[in-house]
Amino acid sequence: MSDVSATIVVDVMGGDDAPDVVLEGVASALMADPDLRVMLVGPAEVVNSFDGVDRCVAVVATEVISMAEHPAGAVRAKKDSSIVVGARLVHEHQAGGFFSAGNTGACMAAATLVVGRLKGVQRPALASIIPGGGRPTVLLDVGANADVKPEMLLQFGHMGAAYARVMLGVESPTVGLLNIGEEPTKGSQLAQDAYRLLEGGLQGFIGNVEGRAVSSGVVDVIVTDGFTGNVTLKVLEGLSKMLLGEVKEALTSSMINKLAGAVVQPSLGALKERLDPEVYGGAPLLGVDGVCMIGHGSSGARGVASGIAATARAVRGDLPSIISAAVSGKVV
Amino acid sequence: MSDVSATIVVDVMGGDDAPDVVLEGVASALMADPDLRVMLVGPAEVVNSFDGVDRCVAVVATEVISMAEHPAGAVRAKKDSSIVVGARLVHEHQAGGFFSAGNTGACMAAATLVVGRLKGVQRPALASIIPGGGRPTVLLDVGANADVKPEMLLQFGHMGAAYARVMLGVESPTVGLLNIGEEPTKGSQLAQDAYRLLEGGLQGFIGNVEGRAVSSGVVDVIVTDGFTGNVTLKVLEGLSKMLLGEVKEALTSSMINKLAGAVVQPSLGALKERLDPEVYGGAPLLGVDGVCMIGHGSSGARGVASGIAATARAVRGDLPSIISAAVSGKVV
Repeated sequence: MSDVSATIVVDVMGGDDAPDVVLEGVASALMADPDLRVMLVGPAEVVNSFDGVDRCVAVVATEVISMAEHPAGAVRAKKDSSIVVGARLVHEHQAGGFFSAGNTGACMAAATLVVGRLKGVQRPALASIIPGGGRPTVLLDVGANADVKPEMLLQFGHMGAAYARVMLGVESPTVGLLNIGEEPTKGSQLAQDAYRLLEGGLQGFIGNVEGRAVSSGVVDVIVTDGFTGNVTLKVLEGLSKMLLGEVKEALTSSMINKLAGAVVQPSLGALKERLDPEVYGGAPLLGVDGVCMIGHGSSGARGVASGIAATARAVRGDLPSIISAAVSGKVV
Repeated sequence: MSDVSATIVVDVMGGDDAPDVVLEGVASALMADPDLRVMLVGPAEVVNSFDGVDRCVAVVATEVISMAEHPAGAVRAKKDSSIVVGARLVHEHQAGGFFSAGNTGACMAAATLVVGRLKGVQRPALASIIPGGGRPTVLLDVGANADVKPEMLLQFGHMGAAYARVMLGVESPTVGLLNIGEEPTKGSQLAQDAYRLLEGGLQGFIGNVEGRAVSSGVVDVIVTDGFTGNVTLKVLEGLSKMLLGEVKEALTSSMINKLAGAVVQPSLGALKERLDPEVYGGAPLLGVDGVCMIGHGSSGARGVASGIAATARAVRGDLPSIISAAVSGKVV
């Protein structure tokens, strides 16, 4: 089912620095991938001049959902917004995937309401790839469902494993349940109930993992509710920023440190690069009938380019079919 | 009520490297604090030779609860273990506080069952001080209660504020509720319900804070359930270790980097020192009728010394009375 070519819808109005940064990201994504086609969705004055240029098609959307708007309400009210129009193009199979660095809640709502859930999926989940010490780890749900039931966590396990297979190329992903102890009887009632379901129903399940596992690369997929997952993601963001800032400060605190700092700068830069979440480009909402990738609002051109590349990769790997089969228990 | 002298019970068998590291920690704590008295609890062959030496008293406990034992079961079965005997000395007011780097669950169980809850406290909570970019932040609950009710989160707010006053010297602490968005209507049902209670019932409440706030020093106290709090603490631990390890690696990856690394080493060492959780020495179980401080199992002598010093500080600040007054709504 996979295909070399891929058509991705891009919301040119998504993100803090849209549309400039988005257009720049589109340009580098197209340059890096000769089989990529892009549908640019946004206001006529932004997109029309790109229609037919290179492998771009322009689709006019007259409305914009801002970063601060109420997600579900905005999706219902603004039928001609770039997010809703983009989602509709995926729903109508005019494109395989959609990328936006816009209002995360609105993108999730459009993916669920307009693109639609895959059959058998109870609740779509937002996944994020955490760059780790060794290998990267897929963490989900990172914010779509603040309150979940144990059966949902089992489905998240199936969906996360499918995502790791398609995106990270791991053939038989290991899956851990985020908990506050390793024994099966540890943790909240939810975690204990989910443990039993995952143990009986998910190949690759290795049991509970603690918070330390998130960035240590010991497991391919970590499953949790959208509350804990979102807190985890933002704790990581906050600490990374703080620590790397402090290291930088330490390296420039005196003239001699500055000189020595200049010497080690390339190595530290490479480290920062390797740990930069932007290389993975975005968080997909898994469980909907198309690839819907949501970028960080603060994405730079590089983050947008990575996000589009990740969306194309998921489309080529036929992620929705893989997830559908995994959730329904069919062998993939 | 505060007193210059303080008597602290120390579990000499607590921690991965007990008793050697613990005894070393006791020695430096005594050296640093001329008004400190210590009751050493443990096997006769370990403690007896210290009886009457300097400001030490030996109390023999014939049993030991290991790090891996089931907490509540061990506390019930081993009445003559160092943890249970230590807790009993606090309950009998022979000492103001208890420090152990042993089995965390067993220490919590002993604190609750043997020392006893303060009147009006629904559930004791484990608090941890997170060293941040700017100022430190008290995070609670970090693991005592995996499932909580909204009213408990309100009490955690009162207890955390009391702890920040006594330990960090913040006169009017600000308190945030850990959530996945800043608006009052964001997050899980628990978070939404707790928001309303905290808004109406806690002075200093500043609203929801996201995961980024944990290490950015924007708020004095962050309240959450013991599941999310424990995951947060371990995510921080794991990422700190990974990042500082990678920075070290980057600084030694070539001969020239090694030379430059040697120059900046003191600054990076000072940074590591400043962010080292060991400087705060332990996590107290708040809400019990005595100071019960639990150290990390991997604590070195320095961690033990800081833990004993923190316990003494909490005893001198009369932490249990301050918490009791805060929880019952009396002006402190």
